[in-house]
Amino acid sequence: MSSNLGIPTRSENFSEWYNELVVKADLADHSSVRGCMVIKPHGYALWENMQRALDDMFKATGHVNAYFPLFIPKSYLEKEADHVEGFAKECAVVTHYRLKSNPNGSGLIPDPDSQLEEPLVVRPTSETIIWNTYSKWIQSYRDLPLLINQWANVVRWEMRTRLFLRTTEFLWQEGHTAHATFEEAEEECLTILHECYGKFATDWLAVPVVKGLKSEGEKFPGADHTYCLESMTQDLRAIQFGTSHHLGQNFAKAFDTKFQSKEGKLEYVYATSWGVSTRMIGALIMTHSDDKGLVCPPKVAPIQVVIVPMGRDEETREKTHGVSDDLAKQLREKGVRVKVDKREKESPGFKYNYWEMRGVPVRIEVGPRDLEAGALTVARRDTGEKETVALDNVVDRAFSLQTEIQDALFAKALQFREENTHRIDTWEEFQSVFAGEGGGGFVLAHWDGTTETEDKISEATKATIRCIPLEPLHPSDAEPGVCVFSGKPSKQRVVFAKAY
Amino acid sequence: MSSNLGIPTRSENFSEWYNELVVKADLADHSSVRGCMVIKPHGYALWENMQRALDDMFKATGHVNAYFPLFIPKSYLEKEADHVEGFAKECAVVTHYRLKSNPNGSGLIPDPDSQLEEPLVVRPTSETIIWNTYSKWIQSYRDLPLLINQWANVVRWEMRTRLFLRTTEFLWQEGHTAHATFEEAEEECLTILHECYGKFATDWLAVPVVKGLKSEGEKFPGADHTYCLESMTQDLRAIQFGTSHHLGQNFAKAFDTKFQSKEGKLEYVYATSWGVSTRMIGALIMTHSDDKGLVCPPKVAPIQVVIVPMGRDEETREKTHGVSDDLAKQLREKGVRVKVDKREKESPGFKYNYWEMRGVPVRIEVGPRDLEAGALTVARRDTGEKETVALDNVVDRAFSLQTEIQDALFAKALQFREENTHRIDTWEEFQSVFAGEGGGGFVLAHWDGTTETEDKISEATKATIRCIPLEPLHPSDAEPGVCVFSGKPSKQRVVFAKAY
Repeated sequence: MSSNLGIPTRSENFSEWYNELVVKADLADHSSVRGCMVIKPHGYALWENMQRALDDMFKATGHVNAYFPLFIPKSYLEKEADHVEGFAKECAVVTHYRLKSNPNGSGLIPDPDSQLEEPLVVRPTSETIIWNTYSKWIQSYRDLPLLINQWANVVRWEMRTRLFLRTTEFLWQEGHTAHATFEEAEEECLTILHECYGKFATDWLAVPVVKGLKSEGEKFPGADHTYCLESMTQDLRAIQFGTSHHLGQNFAKAFDTKFQSKEGKLEYVYATSWGVSTRMIGALIMTHSDDKGLVCPPKVAPIQVVIVPMGRDEETREKTHGVSDDLAKQLREKGVRVKVDKREKESPGFKYNYWEMRGVPVRIEVGPRDLEAGALTVARRDTGEKETVALDNVVDRAFSLQTEIQDALFAKALQFREENTHRIDTWEEFQSVFAGEGGGGFVLAHWDGTTETEDKISEATKATIRCIPLEPLHPSDAEPGVCVFSGKPSKQRVVFAKAY
Repeated sequence: MSSNLGIPTRSENFSEWYNELVVKADLADHSSVRGCMVIKPHGYALWENMQRALDDMFKATGHVNAYFPLFIPKSYLEKEADHVEGFAKECAVVTHYRLKSNPNGSGLIPDPDSQLEEPLVVRPTSETIIWNTYSKWIQSYRDLPLLINQWANVVRWEMRTRLFLRTTEFLWQEGHTAHATFEEAEEECLTILHECYGKFATDWLAVPVVKGLKSEGEKFPGADHTYCLESMTQDLRAIQFGTSHHLGQNFAKAFDTKFQSKEGKLEYVYATSWGVSTRMIGALIMTHSDDKGLVCPPKVAPIQVVIVPMGRDEETREKTHGVSDDLAKQLREKGVRVKVDKREKESPGFKYNYWEMRGVPVRIEVGPRDLEAGALTVARRDTGEKETVALDNVVDRAFSLQTEIQDALFAKALQFREENTHRIDTWEEFQSVFAGEGGGGFVLAHWDGTTETEDKISEATKATIRCIPLEPLHPSDAEPGVCVFSGKPSKQRVVFAKAY
């Protein structure tokens, strides 16, 4: 707590810096319900901007939204063996449908007469309930493809929770598609990976991502294979940004979903599922933010420009407020999200810190002397740089800064990732990179492709295979070599990191 | 099932007409989870349009969105006596957080070691969890008002369910606001009633509503008083469209939420809550739809114009598809939601029925002979009228029809309500209006203001007080009289009806 702004610095304690930033930037708060968070209005506005952009991308690629039940009968979850294995240990289970007065004490108890014959699970993900439904909707090749997305809350009972990163309940979208062939499902997975998630990470969140395939050990329970996007945090760990699963015919078989092909044959349907969640907000924070608080890419920032009018007396305030309102109006006409902070009891300095903590990309200061001089101070959040801008040019400058900041954040994050990505060929070096409590960055190393080696590496270093990149980060990454641990042949380098 | 379109007519069986329409118009479907529905893409697109319009209204009146936990500790629900009384009997209760293999059989059971010390209730509404949070956020008058809305799913365990009208899980928005004074909270309630819900019903859904106060017997559990909006279905029943509750200081007292006033005194906060749900879709259907299926007001219709190109051979189709695409492009540029139905295996007649069932307001038929004649048929869904329109004017006509249909639907529904609203002064007449299985419409009658009389009337006729109108439907409704049942004095006429 040495920082005068009320949060530890990143170098002091990255973990505490994150925890306190989330609360002090008004993004989220702990609730009294174990592991559940309250998403505060500022954080929710950020989520809404992210949702809107993603939703537009889903629709542009042919998807529609729908809504499926929150509850999943236990027997559905049991139908796909790997799937239930993956989720049974973290399910919230509904067993009763009524409360009644406690006959042996005060308060209420679940009414024993209301016990459900079959317990219901609060969805940890919706493959099973959705494929139960699809099995009724799909009869013929003409019913395919089915390209459906759902925005929903899900529950996974987590023992150690952190705001946004890992909470018992979280918000997400989950796409569930049905296809006639393996190839079509594969194309869908990759469309989502590249055209939606990849573009969204890069163009909207300014977060550079490595796109790749998960190893067998890390793929989704019930999937044939899983694609993912991984980004790097400032404490040199990997954070999974989103996943896109090719489910093969596993769920179609579990829920007996067959279709009549063009040739009149009865075949099982191929499936995909894919999702991103409020966890992305954690990735966003850990990529860009600094010791002063949230740094938010302009394209998703709830407020893009804050205007701070000054003045100690009524007459001065009338002038500075008037100019501020006028600037705000002009900016809004250009589609910019603006806030004029007219609070009278707070000092300008307090307000600067306040909005810096909340990640507003651009601040315009409107003081009486500035007005006399005909030029205002415009400050950018990412670098802290201030410019003096002629009053007539302030709107244009605040507008053009949005793009500049968006681009600068991406460039900075990309440079950071490149500086902390290491190509390593010896086991000694590999171990030393991941030694200690720190992250270690991304290590591109050769791996023999076995789960056995993967497990041993992870045991020894806590680093895991984050992904097998689809495109080499450097052309040489795609060249064959020998496994950094076993010395056996390897086709290409893969990304190792300690992960959130 | 006498209708050739696959649904019963309204006069044959209104209830079955509704049930089948919802499924066949692709709005929603029953799920395998008791009482829970699947909202299908067409129905969800309708909900999204409704959400967007309402959300804009909430934001325009100063509200922001946030998100609170799905789970409510049992003890929170117990804190407000009337509230828990109202909801305890329909709560889904989470008692365990893990499944494990059944040691005495196959499959999974809730792991006894994972039993929760305190059961969690799946939110039936969020007053308690939100006021538990507000009690931490509110200290001073400067923290007020707090104007927060949440879009969420809620669960109320219903024994008899119907798609949209009454489902165990449903989607809604719930506003929860905090104020320094009773008067401010009152103003908030009325802003929501008039500026948001009232305008939305009228201007967007074309549903005329009576706005009024609930009687003591019908108010929200935990409220000081409840405002509501009531509309009339085609089978002459009332359906509640939305509610806005003044909660007084009840929840502030239950959760010890005090603030320091400007004068330095510690006072309890005043609260409101208000909500509309997917139930509105039921009200919408029952107001406008007909024996051919859904009739949807253009402003919320997922598809506003469908274009049906014809042609039996490739060459003809090339022409009609080209013209259709061009019309679609022009309409989209005007902001119209358009679908071109190019399916080759389906006849034009099939397509007309298909899109009529799904409530598309305007259809444009593009046949080869129409093109030769330079004029197309434009059909409107609400009246079934067809016009021949010169090709050059088709876009403008399809566009102007959107407003015409929107207005016509409202006018028709209002006329229907007026024709079925009766001012009744004798108990005999009152009973005869509500005799039998039918609805009976709205009855404006005098009432002595007691719950006792209200209960007796309801027992005798199944009609209940839907609301005490804020504005008289006719000036004479506000004049005093004598209670239709007890003969005691009455201040004004109130609305009686059988309700959904």
